[in-house]
Amino acid sequence: MNSRVEQLEKEFLDYVKKMSAYHEALALIYWDLRTGAPKLGVDQRAEVIGMLSSEVFKMSTSEEMAAYIAYLSKAELCEKTRKVLEDCKKNYEKNKKIPAEEFKEFVILQSKAESVWEEAREKSDFEMFRPYLEKLVKITKRFINFWGFEGNRYNALLNLYEPGITVDLLDRVFGELREKIVPLVKRITDSTKKPCTDFLFETFKKESQRQFSLDVLAQIGYNFDAGRLDETVHPFATGLNPGDVRVTTRYDEHDFRTAVFGTIHEGGHALYEQNISKDLIGTPLCSGTSMGIHESQSLFYENFVGRSLPFWKYNYDLLNKYANGQFDQIAIEDFYRAINESKPSFIRIEADELTYPLHIIIRYEIEKGLFNDEMEVENLPEIWNRMYEKYLGIRPGSDAEGVLQDVHWSGGSFGYFPSYALGFLYAAQFKNKMLEELPNFDELLEEGNFLPIKQWLTRNIHQYGKLKKPLEIMTSITGEGLNSKYLVDYLYKKYGEVYQLNE
Amino acid sequence: MNSRVEQLEKEFLDYVKKMSAYHEALALIYWDLRTGAPKLGVDQRAEVIGMLSSEVFKMSTSEEMAAYIAYLSKAELCEKTRKVLEDCKKNYEKNKKIPAEEFKEFVILQSKAESVWEEAREKSDFEMFRPYLEKLVKITKRFINFWGFEGNRYNALLNLYEPGITVDLLDRVFGELREKIVPLVKRITDSTKKPCTDFLFETFKKESQRQFSLDVLAQIGYNFDAGRLDETVHPFATGLNPGDVRVTTRYDEHDFRTAVFGTIHEGGHALYEQNISKDLIGTPLCSGTSMGIHESQSLFYENFVGRSLPFWKYNYDLLNKYANGQFDQIAIEDFYRAINESKPSFIRIEADELTYPLHIIIRYEIEKGLFNDEMEVENLPEIWNRMYEKYLGIRPGSDAEGVLQDVHWSGGSFGYFPSYALGFLYAAQFKNKMLEELPNFDELLEEGNFLPIKQWLTRNIHQYGKLKKPLEIMTSITGEGLNSKYLVDYLYKKYGEVYQLNE
Repeated sequence: MNSRVEQLEKEFLDYVKKMSAYHEALALIYWDLRTGAPKLGVDQRAEVIGMLSSEVFKMSTSEEMAAYIAYLSKAELCEKTRKVLEDCKKNYEKNKKIPAEEFKEFVILQSKAESVWEEAREKSDFEMFRPYLEKLVKITKRFINFWGFEGNRYNALLNLYEPGITVDLLDRVFGELREKIVPLVKRITDSTKKPCTDFLFETFKKESQRQFSLDVLAQIGYNFDAGRLDETVHPFATGLNPGDVRVTTRYDEHDFRTAVFGTIHEGGHALYEQNISKDLIGTPLCSGTSMGIHESQSLFYENFVGRSLPFWKYNYDLLNKYANGQFDQIAIEDFYRAINESKPSFIRIEADELTYPLHIIIRYEIEKGLFNDEMEVENLPEIWNRMYEKYLGIRPGSDAEGVLQDVHWSGGSFGYFPSYALGFLYAAQFKNKMLEELPNFDELLEEGNFLPIKQWLTRNIHQYGKLKKPLEIMTSITGEGLNSKYLVDYLYKKYGEVYQLNE
Repeated sequence: MNSRVEQLEKEFLDYVKKMSAYHEALALIYWDLRTGAPKLGVDQRAEVIGMLSSEVFKMSTSEEMAAYIAYLSKAELCEKTRKVLEDCKKNYEKNKKIPAEEFKEFVILQSKAESVWEEAREKSDFEMFRPYLEKLVKITKRFINFWGFEGNRYNALLNLYEPGITVDLLDRVFGELREKIVPLVKRITDSTKKPCTDFLFETFKKESQRQFSLDVLAQIGYNFDAGRLDETVHPFATGLNPGDVRVTTRYDEHDFRTAVFGTIHEGGHALYEQNISKDLIGTPLCSGTSMGIHESQSLFYENFVGRSLPFWKYNYDLLNKYANGQFDQIAIEDFYRAINESKPSFIRIEADELTYPLHIIIRYEIEKGLFNDEMEVENLPEIWNRMYEKYLGIRPGSDAEGVLQDVHWSGGSFGYFPSYALGFLYAAQFKNKMLEELPNFDELLEEGNFLPIKQWLTRNIHQYGKLKKPLEIMTSITGEGLNSKYLVDYLYKKYGEVYQLNE
């Protein structure tokens, strides 16, 4: 019996290793497509992607997989194999419960909707996109019924990206955030002590920005023997395996912040993937545990490191070495206030730290409304604009800068948005705990000693990959559940200082 | 019956399409490994290569493939399907004889050996590379026994790259070449009318060389919407599909010729792959028909175009625009003589046209010796150096400029080298024929009108991919078999002029 189990376990691990190899090949193909693949090869590349994806999909839902799950679920396994099996089972059930025909319909719809959305956004024409969005919502509702759900129907979607997170929890935490942030945004909007920002927009050569980005990545502990930095339209980080985690960024010669903070953000994602235990290579556990925890790492570095005063005390001279004199007359405190300007704006991906969570909360409330039949797709432009007016005090002038701005819905990725705000909440809570062990956090930044920070994150988070679930990580680090207090405190303290609200 | 055949034919073509998709994914992975993949990801990437290669290997030797071959060989098929089937059959027979485990071992060894070789060459440390080379030779010998062979054991390897070419033929043709070239090299070495070359070695900035290389690629008709130029240690061209054919080159800031002629050479390969009929995409026929014919295209462009006087009449001003004044005082005729200097040298890829075939003949004789148990890997550095002394009159000072210089053996590509000299022989024979249709060849170059040349090559060679075999192409173009006369005549005429031997 025992050797039979051992044999099966070995076969199972070989099987998932093969699946991982497909995923790695696909990740490389996607990276290549987005960093400079010749355009005339794209159609044929899509065929290759289709073939590899369908092979790995077949493997994840095969009778062989079903047999591994059935036999091994009853066996005594080591922790790693058990967690791998759980992950495969979750995937199997997710995919197997959808009739093949419906899944195919969804994939076709998805790809059509994406190109229609692109045109609709360009023309700022919601009516053009509406029928596709309606179908996507409708088919996703059927998927929810196939999958089943507990409590709120939207929980089924949250579970795809952030296992353990529910509508009840989000209503509470996002509610607290909203109640605290909205009045702070109002006070800042009315403030008379706004930072001067003109000097930010002078020409900063791309190549110099690239050099600075490379230096900063190296500082925070990104390993260039296990990665590289390239240029893309939409920056991302991708972990092919822990020895090959690539970062991309975008350069705007009239706003150096795009590249610098974009690189630090993606660098945060990359540090996570580079520091997953090598023991997990070749299994589905060898990746970030959830979208939210991933985002907690990128936002930790972007906001708590990159947008902090001590970080710039260490780096201001270096920045000036690469810049063309644009900051020569600017005191570091004024520079710091400038890069932390907060101002209600329409476009989520351009929002500052303080207003960003409100962009997410709006999308969360809309998705929840849609999937609980409390909102209709046809009313979304009006709902969207009203919510922006209510929470941010500004009303989009067009659907392009309103409801049509994000790609997510056109790909049927409902339930993804909350991860962005969750990541920020997680990050603030981790930071609070980190300060107990590294009370000299600010001094470390000011000295350019980033290693203890990376080590803390690796020890508590990175190394585990998917071995621990998001809330397990939270509890084991902080001893408590998700708590909005830490993020709220951080935002009040930081923006109180930047806008001198208490002076 | 008929619809049964049609159904099977469709299934068979879908099957080979899937195999092509695996090949395309693999080609991208290899390109990536050689153009900047992070070194810590290499081991895991080797696993991915192993998995994908073994999948496509399994497909090429499956019972399903056997069934297609058995049924369809008896059916009436269109030319394309028939040739695809022939190719699959040849491959099936070649691969079926190798046990799957041995093949996988070979593939993993191959990919590791390549990165070890790179380091060994850097350190000029043959001992570091030796165990890998020994294993590669050993496993290849086992492969030869599995395959079987006629006459010489080395014929089995020649057949992989140049079907129809045998040791008997090569001993004759290479023998003729060697007999004619060695005395010509001697006359030139003793000549008192050597070109002055000092000015070639001044600093020519890498970025300027890159710009010139890009311009020249565009001139000869390389389509940048279907390709890109990158930097590597050992330049190559790779066709993922006709819409994505990538070229790499190497820059030496103290010898611009490395990049310029390297780029034109790889550009010649790339033109071949870019101009294969789109009808062949997704089949194994969508590639060059043999290594020798491939090399005939790269050498055609490198030597008959790139190293000709009319080409430089067109491009000398442009070169001077990018250069830093190094040619300002140099008459074009002196420039032409300088870039065509012939001098025995150590590095094959930097060798001039005249001595180049001798570099190949040395490698041919060594490979023939290894596989006929007349030489041992451990003695190669010494054997190598002795042969260089004998044929070229010079002895390498280190293994980096000797036996370690080429990538081929690290990839287990034995039997490949002869293709380079064959390519030159083919090219000279094609050129001779092309002149009948384009008697104004030199004027075309001088006007920068490269299109008729590309069109001639596409019409007679490129478009067919693997639809025609090497000697079929030779016969259909020239009406005769391989003949060393054309290359010998070309070399005597050109070097007679460059060295003013008859004046």
